[in-house]
Amino acid sequence: MMLAVSACVSAPGSAGGPATNDEQTVAAVRAVMEAQQAAWNRGDIEGFMDGYERAETTMFVSGDELTRGWQTVLDRYKQRYSSREQMGTLTFSELEIKTVSPVLAIVDGRWRLARAADAPHGRFTLVFRRNNNNWRIIHDTTTSATP
Amino acid sequence: MMLAVSACVSAPGSAGGPATNDEQTVAAVRAVMEAQQAAWNRGDIEGFMDGYERAETTMFVSGDELTRGWQTVLDRYKQRYSSREQMGTLTFSELEIKTVSPVLAIVDGRWRLARAADAPHGRFTLVFRRNNNNWRIIHDTTTSATP
Repeated sequence: MMLAVSACVSAPGSAGGPATNDEQTVAAVRAVMEAQQAAWNRGDIEGFMDGYERAETTMFVSGDELTRGWQTVLDRYKQRYSSREQMGTLTFSELEIKTVSPVLAIVDGRWRLARAADAPHGRFTLVFRRNNNNWRIIHDTTTSATP
Repeated sequence: MMLAVSACVSAPGSAGGPATNDEQTVAAVRAVMEAQQAAWNRGDIEGFMDGYERAETTMFVSGDELTRGWQTVLDRYKQRYSSREQMGTLTFSELEIKTVSPVLAIVDGRWRLARAADAPHGRFTLVFRRNNNNWRIIHDTTTSATP
């Protein structure tokens, strides 16, 4: 599974020089998202959810709905994607990763599910927070393209 | 125009005590959004856009679309809402304002446009950044409820 990544670092001096903190952040965040995509595509929703911070404050926003808490977000995914057919094949693309503080990054990108019957898609904005050396999603706002 | 605000401060110690930085942030962010709502409802899209940081990096995400740059976001609003009828009456509600760094806040809430023919609505997630003492939106991801 190829993951098209167009990373965009907001701080200067990252081109060609030694690894900066921004480059480390981009690499760490990208690794979390690649692991999420791989987990989804082997039907492992719990593995996918490992990308989110295991906290009551973790938030997922989509359509008219705000879901609060890691476990509740997991339950929502399990309910909406209760079979491999519904899960389809997930691709993230056009990732744009911006560090906004030493422990916070904002990620924009596109999502697409290839399924037998349809191919829902849209965009997302994620807020990642670093806890020790682990970057995890604390806030996910996902949009859907009008069919 | 009443604005229903349910502010939620992430830091402890804000109940009943003297004003904290978090309380100041919540008040400042709320004031920007109240000004945006008031501007929209007098047909003043430029005034509404004063809530956004005047920068090339300002981003607006909706549906399948990412719009980049303050001027481009303004142009998009002017194109989509080219008459008072299309603008309708905007209400923000269920605002939840969380400070995530001394200069960053994340705001979740609902939007609704009351119009003669319909009432589109949905949610939004805003990232506010403080520049001197001015809080402005640097990133807006807006969802739409399925009609």
